[in-house]
Amino acid sequence: MPGIGPKSAQRIAYWILNSDWETAMRLSDAIVGVKDTVHFCPRCFNYAQGELCDICASRRRDESKICVVAEPRDVSAIERTAAYAGLYHVLGGVISPLDGVGPDDLRVAELLARLADEPVAEVVLATNPNIEGETTAAYLARLIKPLGIEVTRLASGLPVGGDLEFADEVTLGRSIEQRRTL
Amino acid sequence: MPGIGPKSAQRIAYWILNSDWETAMRLSDAIVGVKDTVHFCPRCFNYAQGELCDICASRRRDESKICVVAEPRDVSAIERTAAYAGLYHVLGGVISPLDGVGPDDLRVAELLARLADEPVAEVVLATNPNIEGETTAAYLARLIKPLGIEVTRLASGLPVGGDLEFADEVTLGRSIEQRRTL
Repeated sequence: MPGIGPKSAQRIAYWILNSDWETAMRLSDAIVGVKDTVHFCPRCFNYAQGELCDICASRRRDESKICVVAEPRDVSAIERTAAYAGLYHVLGGVISPLDGVGPDDLRVAELLARLADEPVAEVVLATNPNIEGETTAAYLARLIKPLGIEVTRLASGLPVGGDLEFADEVTLGRSIEQRRTL
Repeated sequence: MPGIGPKSAQRIAYWILNSDWETAMRLSDAIVGVKDTVHFCPRCFNYAQGELCDICASRRRDESKICVVAEPRDVSAIERTAAYAGLYHVLGGVISPLDGVGPDDLRVAELLARLADEPVAEVVLATNPNIEGETTAAYLARLIKPLGIEVTRLASGLPVGGDLEFADEVTLGRSIEQRRTL
C-alpha cells in the first residue's frame, strides 16, 4: 500500500488483532464493498458509484468543455480548485515509451468517440507538466485540433504566493515566455 | 548578514584572526572596493560598475521591452533563464502598506519617465506572485495601460516537471484559469 512501510504495516496488523470482531468485519466489508460498488464511469472513466459518475450525472456542468487527465486522482485535484465546471475524460495513464505505454493503452479512442458524439467546443489537456504529460498532450493536440475543436493546456509558471528568486530556471523562463496581457 | 548565524559568525571571526595579514587586507579591500565601484545604474537601477549596467550598456538587448522587477537579484534570476532579451527596471521594493512602503518610495516616477522617453512597446510586470507583488503589478498596470503600452504579467501555474496532485489548490486553479490555446 502506498505510504505504508513495514513498521506502519505491523502497527496496523496489531491494531486489527487488538480490535473487536465487529470493527474487523466492518473494515473487511468496506474493502469488499468499495470494489463491489465502485466502477469506471462508462462516459469519462472516472470512478463512479451510480451508472455514471457524479460529474457526468450532474446537470450543472458545462458540457462544451472536456478536461483530459491521466488518473481519477487528477479529477479530485482539479475539482478541489473550483476553477473548472466542465466534464472530464480520464485517460488511465500517459504515453510512456520507457514503460511500454502507447496511445492504444490509453482511452484515446474513447475520447475521440466522445468528441464525435458530444457538443464539445474546448478540450483542456491537463496532464502533468512533465515529459510524459507533455508528450501525451502534444499527441492529443495533434489529433484533436484538425477536428476544429479548441485545444488548451494548463498554464506553467510560478506558484501563487511564490518568489522569483526561488523558482527553478525552467519554470521562471516558462512564466516569462507564457506571460499574459493584463 | 543573511544566512550567517552566531555560530557561522564566530567561525568566520576565528578564520580571519587565524589568517595572515594579506588575506585579511584583501578581504577588507574587496568589501570597500565593492561599495566604491558598484552603484545603481542611472537608467534601470540595477547594480552597475560602469556608467550604465551591463544590460543597459549592451547593444544586443531589445529596447522595446522593459521588465519591471522589485530587486536587483530578480534581474539575475530572470537573466539565468535566458528567456528574456529586453531591458529592466528595478523598483527597489514593492508596495507594502504594512511596512509603510508606498509608490512614492519606489522608482515609479523614474519608470514613467523612461516610458515617456524610450521607445517601449511592452512592460513585463515581474514582481513576485504574492500579495505585495500582485498589488504593485496592479498599481503599475493602471498607470501604464492608459499610455497605450502593452502590459504583461508573468504566468502563474504549475512548475515545469511538477505534478497536479501535489500542486496547491490556488496555483492549480490559476493554471486552469490561465490555460493557453495550443
